[in-house]
Amino acid sequence: MENIYDIIIIGEGIAGMTAAIYAKRAGASVLILEKNAVGGQASLSYEIGNYPGFDNISGFELVSHISKQVKELKVDTRYEQVQKIQDGKIKSVFTKNNEYRCKAIILCLGASPRKLGIEKEKQLIGKGISYCAVCDGAFYRNKNVAIIGRGNTAAEDACYLSNIANNVYIINRKSDLKAQSILVSRIQEQVAKEKIKMINNSEVVDVIGENKVEAVKIQDLVKNVTYDLKVDGIFVATGRVADTDWLDDLVEVDENGYIIVDKYKRTNREGIYSAGDCTNTVLRQLITSAADGAIAGTNAYEYVKNIIL
Amino acid sequence: MENIYDIIIIGEGIAGMTAAIYAKRAGASVLILEKNAVGGQASLSYEIGNYPGFDNISGFELVSHISKQVKELKVDTRYEQVQKIQDGKIKSVFTKNNEYRCKAIILCLGASPRKLGIEKEKQLIGKGISYCAVCDGAFYRNKNVAIIGRGNTAAEDACYLSNIANNVYIINRKSDLKAQSILVSRIQEQVAKEKIKMINNSEVVDVIGENKVEAVKIQDLVKNVTYDLKVDGIFVATGRVADTDWLDDLVEVDENGYIIVDKYKRTNREGIYSAGDCTNTVLRQLITSAADGAIAGTNAYEYVKNIIL
Repeated sequence: MENIYDIIIIGEGIAGMTAAIYAKRAGASVLILEKNAVGGQASLSYEIGNYPGFDNISGFELVSHISKQVKELKVDTRYEQVQKIQDGKIKSVFTKNNEYRCKAIILCLGASPRKLGIEKEKQLIGKGISYCAVCDGAFYRNKNVAIIGRGNTAAEDACYLSNIANNVYIINRKSDLKAQSILVSRIQEQVAKEKIKMINNSEVVDVIGENKVEAVKIQDLVKNVTYDLKVDGIFVATGRVADTDWLDDLVEVDENGYIIVDKYKRTNREGIYSAGDCTNTVLRQLITSAADGAIAGTNAYEYVKNIIL
Repeated sequence: MENIYDIIIIGEGIAGMTAAIYAKRAGASVLILEKNAVGGQASLSYEIGNYPGFDNISGFELVSHISKQVKELKVDTRYEQVQKIQDGKIKSVFTKNNEYRCKAIILCLGASPRKLGIEKEKQLIGKGISYCAVCDGAFYRNKNVAIIGRGNTAAEDACYLSNIANNVYIINRKSDLKAQSILVSRIQEQVAKEKIKMINNSEVVDVIGENKVEAVKIQDLVKNVTYDLKVDGIFVATGRVADTDWLDDLVEVDENGYIIVDKYKRTNREGIYSAGDCTNTVLRQLITSAADGAIAGTNAYEYVKNIIL
């Protein structure tokens, strides 16, 4: 019989890597397919304080550690974007140039930042609009930046950028932040030092600039007035959405596009599992992605061991 | 108002510590009550290879890292055994000498080794009967030991003891091991070297010795004969049971005594959560205990923020 993997894992983020560790240690043959680079969203966290075992670690460093574990187990890994999945007892996974076959699939697709939803957005990406403070923050040394959002990511981005940029504005639709209190305290310290300025009850309605961002047009939702704020950069931190569109109707997703899994991390399709940020989990954290991956890897291999072809 | 904690966490294992990290970072006031020592069962693992982020670490070391994170967050911790919980909107947790009050409780009680179930067992604990190879293995240098069990713990214990003891026997009720293939391979290597001997399809029916273990009485389930095997030590590794008896009927448990929780780690009692090995989880691993703790800590504090006293 030609090469058929026990399990193909799509996505090499925290969930995918942990699924690989568990499946491979259990005895499965495993292939990971990743469209970009190892680590997924985790790589972009500049400081992680709540992953048990590490007091303070960068996302990049944590990813390196886990990736080393995967490599030592000799898990096959290929950097190819999956375009289509053909279901069946033997499943086919198609990339641009290849077809890989397997008995079970684990979808660890992650989630990507929600877009702002304004017309010029696409045109200004990389020209002042960014979704990742850690990736692009360095371009804004001594410049003025606006962060749009009110959650943990917005708060983390603001702290990070306050060490780099001149003025940091947080544009918040409500009057308070919805972030961990440890982050809220840090923001308050920076607000007291006038490094960070809160612009509450306000919404970005447009971006000014053609070839680069020059200002944001802000609507004050209470006073109902609109004005321009001069900034060089805009960091969008308004949540994330699952990268599940390309799956079409392969597996059931909820109204937000998150893959619906049960406690064994099974989707509604036999032999297709899913783990991490792309699923309808109750908490999207590195530690929960890792645990979900462990459960998916373990149960996918239990399934593989018991199927009769 | 006198001191009322937002959350009391019972148990300072991986689940309890992670619950503390998440709850405290979110802004809760937290007290951990632990009856023994920090770390729970995890402390007793001599080698952990599947915790994402650490290539190879001892349980003791991993526990130290996580405990450091908890300490830095200034979480209150007291080493007292909880004897009774009185439910209500404000809950009371009673130890021998103290009463602590709180708005929410997270039960992270862990699980302890299943007993062998023979008459002389209690009498010979510490005199040749052990439930922890890492704790007691050193006493058996160049001696003969029997491991009873067939799962991951039995396999790990056998590998560990094969470096210490003279002869290591695995007494297994079935004909194969039910352990991760990476562990099974290691056992096979040691069997080839005659360091480990498999005694399959066999059961321990009695232990010989009054003040110390002298032999085990083994029944061969296939040949239906009984014989004595001279050993100095017996390591029982036949699974674990939840430490939930003392709760009486406070929360709903399943037929094995595991606390029934939903995906938010809520028990059937308002404001009482549970996480880790003591719950009806689908996978009992360090990484899943940590994730469960994160979910319980997050949701318990969400509950606390929203209750009206």
